[in-house]
Amino acid sequence: MKILDNATITTVPFFKASGVHCGLRKKNKKDLCVIYSEKKAIAAAVFTRNNVKAAPIYVNMEHINNKNTQAIVISSAYANTCTGAKGIENAFEMTEALAKALNLKPQEVLVSSTGRIGIQLPMDKVLYGIELGVNELSYDGGEDASDAILTTDTFTKTFGVEFEIDEKKVKLCAIAKGSGMVHPNMGTILSFMSTDLNISKEMLTKALRDSTEISYNMISVDGDTSTNDMAVIFANGVAGNKLIDSEDENYLKFKEALDFLNIQLSKMIAKDGEGATKLIEVDVLNAKTLDDARRSAKAVINSSLVKSAFFGSDANWGRIMCSLGYSGAEINPYNIDIHFKNSYGEAEIVKAGIDAIVSAEVVENILKQEHINIVIDLKDGEYNATAWGCDLTYDYVRINGYYRT
Amino acid sequence: MKILDNATITTVPFFKASGVHCGLRKKNKKDLCVIYSEKKAIAAAVFTRNNVKAAPIYVNMEHINNKNTQAIVISSAYANTCTGAKGIENAFEMTEALAKALNLKPQEVLVSSTGRIGIQLPMDKVLYGIELGVNELSYDGGEDASDAILTTDTFTKTFGVEFEIDEKKVKLCAIAKGSGMVHPNMGTILSFMSTDLNISKEMLTKALRDSTEISYNMISVDGDTSTNDMAVIFANGVAGNKLIDSEDENYLKFKEALDFLNIQLSKMIAKDGEGATKLIEVDVLNAKTLDDARRSAKAVINSSLVKSAFFGSDANWGRIMCSLGYSGAEINPYNIDIHFKNSYGEAEIVKAGIDAIVSAEVVENILKQEHINIVIDLKDGEYNATAWGCDLTYDYVRINGYYRT
Repeated sequence: MKILDNATITTVPFFKASGVHCGLRKKNKKDLCVIYSEKKAIAAAVFTRNNVKAAPIYVNMEHINNKNTQAIVISSAYANTCTGAKGIENAFEMTEALAKALNLKPQEVLVSSTGRIGIQLPMDKVLYGIELGVNELSYDGGEDASDAILTTDTFTKTFGVEFEIDEKKVKLCAIAKGSGMVHPNMGTILSFMSTDLNISKEMLTKALRDSTEISYNMISVDGDTSTNDMAVIFANGVAGNKLIDSEDENYLKFKEALDFLNIQLSKMIAKDGEGATKLIEVDVLNAKTLDDARRSAKAVINSSLVKSAFFGSDANWGRIMCSLGYSGAEINPYNIDIHFKNSYGEAEIVKAGIDAIVSAEVVENILKQEHINIVIDLKDGEYNATAWGCDLTYDYVRINGYYRT
Repeated sequence: MKILDNATITTVPFFKASGVHCGLRKKNKKDLCVIYSEKKAIAAAVFTRNNVKAAPIYVNMEHINNKNTQAIVISSAYANTCTGAKGIENAFEMTEALAKALNLKPQEVLVSSTGRIGIQLPMDKVLYGIELGVNELSYDGGEDASDAILTTDTFTKTFGVEFEIDEKKVKLCAIAKGSGMVHPNMGTILSFMSTDLNISKEMLTKALRDSTEISYNMISVDGDTSTNDMAVIFANGVAGNKLIDSEDENYLKFKEALDFLNIQLSKMIAKDGEGATKLIEVDVLNAKTLDDARRSAKAVINSSLVKSAFFGSDANWGRIMCSLGYSGAEINPYNIDIHFKNSYGEAEIVKAGIDAIVSAEVVENILKQEHINIVIDLKDGEYNATAWGCDLTYDYVRINGYYRT
């Protein structure tokens, strides 16, 4: 597997995309994106598990059952959530408009929105945007697309890899957004992936679901699971490999690439959490069960006290122990070792549940870096998990206290 | 029932207390407190459900089984948590020293510590503090005691009521601390109550447990359940009422007073959350089950996004809907009505799941007050719950980013 330089969703053959400004946002910011596979394609998707779901989620839950799925339109600025029957109607209308412009059936396209909850979409602008977006579709539109799906993100999130199956080169690329309302517990963020792999819809769905569990579902920016989360992968099969329709060796090759891709994007999302100054990676080792490992890692990354301490470069490891304690995971406090490490160095923090810091200066210097890895050894079993998050900062409060202004 | 003016834990007959400075904190801040019933007394307690428990919790879990419980010592500055076998030894030593000074057995006294995790108690100072604290015990020491248990709190939390049972006047008073690491999900904060009621240990325990569920366990400052939480009530029986040993009418009178007391203290703790500028009260009405009502109220009060929006006086009700959605409660988004109300006025925000704001100006003025009541009608059943919390502010981040400095 190799990482593709400057890859984006249109790096995969026969995928076109666009990102346009249609007036949903101010100041000419791109606010609508279309992704389109010129060739017939299958798609798989995972959606938020929040009981309050955005209107587009309901539409997609129907459309994803269609065999052929070739396009998606994503609007930003308004979430189209808590918008009642009118909101659902509008989401359907978006798929109809996109399908018509691309000469497809409505059920062959998907729809997504992100932004503020509770306001009806200005449909005149959205429909104009879809027309514009289809007109501007191009083989190098991936970058514009990755820009158009952002809200409070500070940088675009794109990634791509190439791997070989049946001596055919297969590409797998994605664009994503994150920033706020990001929480590991259930759903995910927005992530759109393209690949030219030839794979069955069933196996594509399985791969996406499993991959989401160890990537997007292990991020926490603020503990709030969004109403609009979705991850969608399109596969148009043009790589020409023999169809993957079981968990064979080729499936595992693809799954490895997909996991790698999604973890890279997850780290970007965590690093670009609202107001974040640091990327925090929590590795939990040797938990009794996989569920214990995941719960432990998520509890630590999700603690406001831990996040604040990292913002202040404070080695307040008691808060890590505290969050492990209330995580619901089965742990033995007196077994636990904790290390901090990164490019600056490595330091033992806790040994058998009690303080083990030798040099406060070394620890402080580790904590002052932008990427900190917390390694927690529970010594209770053999299951591991990793979670990603960011610090809690003044800017998080500013962004979310004054989101509308 | 009547509210007692300026009541504190020593307002109840035969209760003495003290709050002294023994050098655990700087700047002459009181840092150790003793509470003592001169008469024989029973006690009931609830402890944190965090798997990482402070050393004093382990000691108390043993001592609370004793029939007679007459005193407690509480130290602040250090939590005595994650301090290994030495920490447990130190907590036992604190009970031994206090018992000796009061001519009691160690198992007749309790112990509590609050502060930073992971550092051994400076026992020379603590033992000196216990000696000093016992020397200074007095019938009007309750205020000093309420001061000595604080950490980052900005005001003391005391409350007292009087009610009649068997034509005897019964007093019920308390002191508490809150501020950080406060979360509804399991344990509680520090709260110490005294009463002269004559009641069996079994009924006292039941009353305290049930009361904690609807008071301290419904507060959230930051979603972190502390390792040191405890609530203890002492009852010395000198009011002279007939012993309460079943859930009779007199028990219910006491329970009503206890709930009222604990809810008052819970509100004080929520209002004094670290960095808080506003007290937020969430009433969930007409949930399908009691568990659904509690989960819904807690999810809203615990959301960093909701908290930030209230800090900015932003009527971002979508975040409330979002948190109801991921709360795990069974809800129907299209049933939900939301109102905001307080001393300024009342406004409908959401009707049947969608926007219902008539005057943005009125809503903004409601949100600018220091106490805001969110009323959420789920219209799915007949169970109600109330939770209390505060906003998320720059100061929360400052306090917790730089706790040590």
